[in-house]
Amino acid sequence: MKRAVIVGGSGYTGAELIRLLYAHEAVELVGVTSRKLAGQPVSAVFPPLHGLTELEFISPDEALALRPDVVFFATPHGVCMQQAGAFLENGAKVIDLSADFRIRDAETFYKWYQIPHTAPELLAESVYGISEIYPEQIAKARLIANPGCYPTAVQLSLYPLLRAGILQDSRVIIDAKSGVSGAGREAKVGSLFAEVAGNFKAYAANGHRHLPEIVQQLSDYAKQSIQATFVPHLVPMSRGIETTCYLTTGVSLETAHAQLCEYYQNAPFVEVLPLGAHPETRFASYTNRCVIGVFQQYKGQLIVSAVIDNLLKGASGQAIQNMNLLFDLPNTMGLSLYPLIP
Amino acid sequence: MKRAVIVGGSGYTGAELIRLLYAHEAVELVGVTSRKLAGQPVSAVFPPLHGLTELEFISPDEALALRPDVVFFATPHGVCMQQAGAFLENGAKVIDLSADFRIRDAETFYKWYQIPHTAPELLAESVYGISEIYPEQIAKARLIANPGCYPTAVQLSLYPLLRAGILQDSRVIIDAKSGVSGAGREAKVGSLFAEVAGNFKAYAANGHRHLPEIVQQLSDYAKQSIQATFVPHLVPMSRGIETTCYLTTGVSLETAHAQLCEYYQNAPFVEVLPLGAHPETRFASYTNRCVIGVFQQYKGQLIVSAVIDNLLKGASGQAIQNMNLLFDLPNTMGLSLYPLIP
Amino acid sequence: MKRAVIVGGSGYTGAELIRLLYAHEAVELVGVTSRKLAGQPVSAVFPPLHGLTELEFISPDEALALRPDVVFFATPHGVCMQQAGAFLENGAKVIDLSADFRIRDAETFYKWYQIPHTAPELLAESVYGISEIYPEQIAKARLIANPGCYPTAVQLSLYPLLRAGILQDSRVIIDAKSGVSGAGREAKVGSLFAEVAGNFKAYAANGHRHLPEIVQQLSDYAKQSIQATFVPHLVPMSRGIETTCYLTTGVSLETAHAQLCEYYQNAPFVEVLPLGAHPETRFASYTNRCVIGVFQQYKGQLIVSAVIDNLLKGASGQAIQNMNLLFDLPNTMGLSLYPLIP
Amino acid sequence: MKRAVIVGGSGYTGAELIRLLYAHEAVELVGVTSRKLAGQPVSAVFPPLHGLTELEFISPDEALALRPDVVFFATPHGVCMQQAGAFLENGAKVIDLSADFRIRDAETFYKWYQIPHTAPELLAESVYGISEIYPEQIAKARLIANPGCYPTAVQLSLYPLLRAGILQDSRVIIDAKSGVSGAGREAKVGSLFAEVAGNFKAYAANGHRHLPEIVQQLSDYAKQSIQATFVPHLVPMSRGIETTCYLTTGVSLETAHAQLCEYYQNAPFVEVLPLGAHPETRFASYTNRCVIGVFQQYKGQLIVSAVIDNLLKGASGQAIQNMNLLFDLPNTMGLSLYPLIP
Repeated sequence: MKRAVIVGGSGYTGAELIRLLYAHEAVELVGVTSRKLAGQPVSAVFPPLHGLTELEFISPDEALALRPDVVFFATPHGVCMQQAGAFLENGAKVIDLSADFRIRDAETFYKWYQIPHTAPELLAESVYGISEIYPEQIAKARLIANPGCYPTAVQLSLYPLLRAGILQDSRVIIDAKSGVSGAGREAKVGSLFAEVAGNFKAYAANGHRHLPEIVQQLSDYAKQSIQATFVPHLVPMSRGIETTCYLTTGVSLETAHAQLCEYYQNAPFVEVLPLGAHPETRFASYTNRCVIGVFQQYKGQLIVSAVIDNLLKGASGQAIQNMNLLFDLPNTMGLSLYPLIP
Repeated sequence: MKRAVIVGGSGYTGAELIRLLYAHEAVELVGVTSRKLAGQPVSAVFPPLHGLTELEFISPDEALALRPDVVFFATPHGVCMQQAGAFLENGAKVIDLSADFRIRDAETFYKWYQIPHTAPELLAESVYGISEIYPEQIAKARLIANPGCYPTAVQLSLYPLLRAGILQDSRVIIDAKSGVSGAGREAKVGSLFAEVAGNFKAYAANGHRHLPEIVQQLSDYAKQSIQATFVPHLVPMSRGIETTCYLTTGVSLETAHAQLCEYYQNAPFVEVLPLGAHPETRFASYTNRCVIGVFQQYKGQLIVSAVIDNLLKGASGQAIQNMNLLFDLPNTMGLSLYPLIP
Repeated sequence: MKRAVIVGGSGYTGAELIRLLYAHEAVELVGVTSRKLAGQPVSAVFPPLHGLTELEFISPDEALALRPDVVFFATPHGVCMQQAGAFLENGAKVIDLSADFRIRDAETFYKWYQIPHTAPELLAESVYGISEIYPEQIAKARLIANPGCYPTAVQLSLYPLLRAGILQDSRVIIDAKSGVSGAGREAKVGSLFAEVAGNFKAYAANGHRHLPEIVQQLSDYAKQSIQATFVPHLVPMSRGIETTCYLTTGVSLETAHAQLCEYYQNAPFVEVLPLGAHPETRFASYTNRCVIGVFQQYKGQLIVSAVIDNLLKGASGQAIQNMNLLFDLPNTMGLSLYPLIP
Repeated sequence: MKRAVIVGGSGYTGAELIRLLYAHEAVELVGVTSRKLAGQPVSAVFPPLHGLTELEFISPDEALALRPDVVFFATPHGVCMQQAGAFLENGAKVIDLSADFRIRDAETFYKWYQIPHTAPELLAESVYGISEIYPEQIAKARLIANPGCYPTAVQLSLYPLLRAGILQDSRVIIDAKSGVSGAGREAKVGSLFAEVAGNFKAYAANGHRHLPEIVQQLSDYAKQSIQATFVPHLVPMSRGIETTCYLTTGVSLETAHAQLCEYYQNAPFVEVLPLGAHPETRFASYTNRCVIGVFQQYKGQLIVSAVIDNLLKGASGQAIQNMNLLFDLPNTMGLSLYPLIP
């Protein structure tokens, strides 16, 4: 059994990692840290776990002393860049669910996150962890930058199309929607039930932190500088992301559909729907799946709708999938999750 | 007091018209029809009204015999074109909340609604009823085509910009989202609570019936043929529409904002937010308001987000506003509705 | 026009008072205080009000200087007992929406609220403000204790029955349920959308602060010491309270129903449903109504279900109703609110 | 591998059985019937399963020909009593999720379900399938009556207390609340999202079909005739049941708590919370657990709150648990489900 530690386990991605690691056959969860909550039972912070776990939060130093094989950082931005080095020196693999290693250019990172990068050599070494696109690089990595939730849905929607060179201009419009758990578990008036229920809105429409990550990746795939427009919206539901991407292209709807189907034919977590069918977030929620549909209203244009669970394929599920690659385990181990009806 | 009749009052737009007409100072509701429910109390169909109204559903013939001053058709598509003539001959004004008179071209109407138009002469006479754009034509009309819910939000977002000629190409991308009441009150598995709660999806992404209406109107405003792409989505909430429109333009964000502010400075129901602020559906829900925000991520591009209540400004509220114009009443009479917190 | 001030207007009951007073024909809102937010626009705190009000929060001292005719305290417990005196000396009427004057016995108050009562002489003078039961006392009062939300639904359910002496023992069991706005607008993890949606629970089942208020009032009505058991529950919705009361009685279902109908026959805000019909919170939500149904499964027993809006009949609506009595205005003035469909 | 068939698999309990059987290590799902949908893919009826199953609905006759080891009836009341015999003759075990075999007295069954019982000899043979109470009888049964959802929560709450004889009179008051999936997947106006969201209500308050089942079972446990009062309520959420039971007793809170803890100390699916802690439906939702808390407001009285998932421990999960007993498999096999956060 490999031994895993979660650093910063008191939020929703932490809870999801705990759940996934408990059920994993080849990896054992040996510690969960929280600076503030060290010494408290995990079930005091997550009451649904009462009676299900005896785990207590530990300090980051205790976590280091456990000499784990893999460490998941489910911390705010700026923490992993400080602490990853010590774990790596101890021989651990590091999977960072924060943004610290997602943006290759430190200046761009600073512009959007307002944190100077303190580990540029690790940034250079890190591998961007989207398993369907970089499986070989991930398998050999020490330090993995787990992608952002929105960027995951967007890249899975567009990678097979952009690499095939179907874009006719450099513009991609992305209209994205997320459930409320994407805002984290922090107590904020804007996340209260009575503020969110029955309400829908765009936010960060002048520019969201996931924009530079999307631009970097799509430009790589298209081998040209992509001008992405990205507007996220908040949906009154707990989980799920849907992204609708609008492209200009010369290929037909059928060709685009075939390109997607072909690329993902052996991908256990990506499902391309038949022409005419629409993805719904519940097809992917509580699973590690991404479900994709393509549409067209005029010749020359393409619409791609994709859904994922923001906490699973968009965060903790993808992190486990990356871990499976790192440890040469079956890709779906611990991730055979089934959508819930209802 | 003017006398009003609602034809087809057993759905959500019917219920909203009942509520609005009850509170209206200058117009009295004298009858609500339902072929199926004639003779039944309105409160049996809408249990929240128990103890609040003695009204009973009547037949369409009884409604005609009441010789009302104004008739609202809250019927499925295809009914108003059959019945409007009789009411008009009796001297009534007709406000049609269905699509029968929204599309000027009968062939286009047939293509999208699969109903041959049986009243082409009335179609030619009808006036498209968006009060902020056609106030004078509405005031003089006999027959008003009340706009679709999505098209209302889109037109209010774009009219002041398109008439100023700011578009740099002919394309407009519209990503739209609606609460579930937009699907009506019909018993369908897809509208059940347990199917909708916690779920978000695109629908009709290959082409929705509101597309030709949007294209017709935007092309008029821009004085060129507009290629609109329109993808609606379903939000797990009862009420509200948000539309995010993406344009290519040469004007600056500030100029576009100023054009919107100027055009709507005296419009009692349209609020343009300061730069940086995002509309939320709850700003408009349960009111006749449209709240608009403009954004930009790159020079040359413009993003417009707008919110309305699909049943009010998107249907019954706008119908009352049109009625006020028809009867030369103050624009806001019966529509001084306040957003609800929470 | 009478002049009103709200002390502590940054919560949900404050927002509701603002909305109700804006629409009131005989009373004008001249100030809303918030110690923390003084100087800030009300619409910055309640974004849905953007464009609808120019009001700014003021300090409590400024409010006093305005010499209002009536003051609403929408403050945490313990504030009104400190500040009411100054307003009363200035000639204002005071309506307290907190618990400060609800419990006649200061010792009992201390036991449940852990605050020593600092204004026992005002406590002695205050009138318990449930308009359907104490209309004459309220009309003559200077200081009104606005009832708790749960106690309002319970008293309206049981008053006509208890005064008729139908109880066969001293026990009343009350199973109560409330929407989340009852927990206020404070940022707490337990009130987050992602914690509340899809979840239902009992809370304070060993004893809730509304219990002594319920016991005091029911004992008065029954002219005997009542042993009430009261268990509140949290419902994943923003507004609404339902209470189900279980009694042992010798009277028949029909007699009990007749007693309720008779008592409320002229009460504009209380609706007793026909036998067999069930109240739903949406019959009362966003209105000042209480809707009541009675049921029986065995002879000798009675079940009463009642619904109110916790922020209206359970707080701000009832406060306006009390104000109408104080100023000898029509009971329903400013409160002609209609249930929403959907 | 044992071979299982589901009769009537197009509803929510059917979907849940499919999900559970797919993941079960010792039992294989070989057929799902639906008279109406025979020949259609299961994923056409349950779109979230698209890409996850190739299963097609078959006819009841085809199911019989498959000669399964176990048959689950997820049919409306009245079907299993007609069809169980044929499967039993073929050597299959039958687990009936409908009410056909829950009520021992055919006359009482007729009174509440309005269906004459056509298989009285099977009724006499059937075993009531609540695993925590009748494990030995279930293990030896051929035909199991899977309990109702509400009765499951009530019996698990009260069995250890009633058998210890703690009741001081014969009355038990049960205030129960359920999510909307309890009403099934049938298209009904009352189950629409826009009718249910934001709404809470009691229903069947004059007597619900689960009442005779509760009375029969509680009377058995208490060895006296119990007068249960049972009022169910509808909660705006998809899943989950909470029941609050009110008893009169001579034992202390601590004694009652100890009785519950002791009885369930080795029960893998029942968790008794420490004194003071409240069960929440999310502690049990999407799991086969029942979580219980006990409370007291006065000496001599006891309050028991319990939560289950209505579709799992209240239906399909309990059915699998019964199947495990029938086949002498580990009790938790296929049921290691973890609560979801959020």
